[in-house]
Amino acid sequence: MFEFTVLQKGEGSARLGKLQIRDMKVETPVFMPVGTYAAVKAVSPQDLKDIGVQIILSNAYHLYLRPGEKLIKNLGGIHSFTGWDGGYLTDSGGFQIFSLSPLRKIEQDGVTFRSHLDGSKKFLTPEDIVQIEVDIGADIIMPLDVCLAAESSHEEAQKAATITVQWAKRSKSIFRRIGGTGTLFCIVQGNMYKDLRERCANDLSEIDFPGYAIGGLSVGEDKSTMYNVIEYTTPLLPENRPRYLMGVGAPGDILEAVLRGVDMFDSVLPTRNARNATVFIPGGKLLLRNAQLQEDKNAIQNDCHCYTCRNFSRAYIRHLFKTRELLAYRLATIHNLYYLTHFLAQLREALKRDRLKQFYEDFKRGML
Amino acid sequence: MFEFTVLQKGEGSARLGKLQIRDMKVETPVFMPVGTYAAVKAVSPQDLKDIGVQIILSNAYHLYLRPGEKLIKNLGGIHSFTGWDGGYLTDSGGFQIFSLSPLRKIEQDGVTFRSHLDGSKKFLTPEDIVQIEVDIGADIIMPLDVCLAAESSHEEAQKAATITVQWAKRSKSIFRRIGGTGTLFCIVQGNMYKDLRERCANDLSEIDFPGYAIGGLSVGEDKSTMYNVIEYTTPLLPENRPRYLMGVGAPGDILEAVLRGVDMFDSVLPTRNARNATVFIPGGKLLLRNAQLQEDKNAIQNDCHCYTCRNFSRAYIRHLFKTRELLAYRLATIHNLYYLTHFLAQLREALKRDRLKQFYEDFKRGML
Repeated sequence: MFEFTVLQKGEGSARLGKLQIRDMKVETPVFMPVGTYAAVKAVSPQDLKDIGVQIILSNAYHLYLRPGEKLIKNLGGIHSFTGWDGGYLTDSGGFQIFSLSPLRKIEQDGVTFRSHLDGSKKFLTPEDIVQIEVDIGADIIMPLDVCLAAESSHEEAQKAATITVQWAKRSKSIFRRIGGTGTLFCIVQGNMYKDLRERCANDLSEIDFPGYAIGGLSVGEDKSTMYNVIEYTTPLLPENRPRYLMGVGAPGDILEAVLRGVDMFDSVLPTRNARNATVFIPGGKLLLRNAQLQEDKNAIQNDCHCYTCRNFSRAYIRHLFKTRELLAYRLATIHNLYYLTHFLAQLREALKRDRLKQFYEDFKRGML
Repeated sequence: MFEFTVLQKGEGSARLGKLQIRDMKVETPVFMPVGTYAAVKAVSPQDLKDIGVQIILSNAYHLYLRPGEKLIKNLGGIHSFTGWDGGYLTDSGGFQIFSLSPLRKIEQDGVTFRSHLDGSKKFLTPEDIVQIEVDIGADIIMPLDVCLAAESSHEEAQKAATITVQWAKRSKSIFRRIGGTGTLFCIVQGNMYKDLRERCANDLSEIDFPGYAIGGLSVGEDKSTMYNVIEYTTPLLPENRPRYLMGVGAPGDILEAVLRGVDMFDSVLPTRNARNATVFIPGGKLLLRNAQLQEDKNAIQNDCHCYTCRNFSRAYIRHLFKTRELLAYRLATIHNLYYLTHFLAQLREALKRDRLKQFYEDFKRGML
């Protein structure tokens, strides 16, 4: 079962919504941590539950290469395989194929690439990718798309968007035919070109999908460009469908996107930053290797209720990073995911109380 | 407060005992996981609590170099610094100075060595080491000793044992003068020479300490030699004092040592093995990278109640090791520490019920 309801509208184009995924209700706007290889790096499913995470992401391309989607299927699907019974969204891996593969060739029919693991040549169609994601057993499935860098030409971008729409159509057909559980979203491409985003959004809306992702952003463009693309893209999407901005996880960017009508987010930012000893705090970031923290008895964030902040000082976590103790990565990751999960919860609360403008001002003043 | 009581005697020289450390009761025989740098590798204090661990080990030499004992003191001591409110034993680091330092010179007065981190020259007396451990705030403090390799000559071993006794005496004096909290143990040396072990044990018994460690074993000798040294050493020690065999953590070795009258153990074995994808199971070890486990739905050990075995399959943990996910190290470590903690709990239960012989046979048959 999959359902999306807009519960309330707020400042700008912001929406408070509810995703029903199987028997689980997920309030939106929501942030989804990334677990590329069927594990959110450095934390356990129990950690994610404790943090309040409801839905996470994995990557079909990576799981296809290792351990293989059939293995996951044989072991009862991704939820059973990983012990995570919350929501699972799988990205197709289109972005990874284009960024990681040493050789790749996009043709009408599909994509040829080399595995970044062993160099072996692979060919995958959009149909293959859907089958892989159905085998994995994801709750939300992203189709194969063509994602370009920020500086791509109009011609390239047009070609990519056209193929993306064709592939989305084919993905929908095969998905219907397979009769898989889960829900197939689509992805709006078009690079930074308004006419292409419009055409792509219109074409996909006509085909009709239960959810619409905005892809091809956070690929090197400046922030004002990104906000602008979001701003003119969301009104082109069906009102009653969730909108998912792919690859965006900085609190400020999430806030700007929510104000422009986005409901779902994912990014490796909080987990990757954490492993590099960089954690979110109100007003910015804290670098945990900083010598100034050497004897700092404070928690990363004193008013934070995560396991890390309730139990450990900046001085101790700094020591763990300096001695490369594995616990360091987990503690920092727990904080960053909690910070972002809590940030979204506060944002939704502000939306409910029609105080999003105040929330925005508080954030800009470094209070959140 | 520190107190040790032998509650019951069993098979061979086995003893069931109770350590009172501050307000905490620790049943013996007990295994203490090692957290060299003030953190048991890959797990959190909460993980240790959940596993049932009551007392852990850290290393004065390592903490002196990084982050420095004064820093730990300024932050309220090791318990407050690390968030671990269970028992803390600090090893002096004598063994580490001798094994890690590129240059080391033992003199009557103390030891000169180079930091294995930056090569800087250091000189530490037994008094310095006690002061460091008092600053750290350990519950049980080990004095500086001289630990040799298995193939040392009688002359070398005699010299080392003599210095060890002198240093123990000096450690006791300074410890009294400082009036530190915690409890100072002593360490019996003498390599594999019975006459030297005897003399060392007698000398230390005369000085009188609240606890006696057997050092200088598990340094390259074969198992029968090790068991033999333990067998003739424990009767030389005061009956009413805890006996701590340093650096031994294999279940079979623990069992043999318990039968010979040992009460306390520590070793990096369970945690180091875990990070190398090797876990304890009844009857031996399981190599988690093994291709045969690729689709194995079983837990590492189906009847184990640890977090890992309650939630994850061998296939998934193998996948985590293959993809180098940090979660792999934590899950394997949790299992190994749980296995060993549970093994000791079963052993104590067998002791209580006067069934240690049966326990021994069950172990030998691979049932434990």
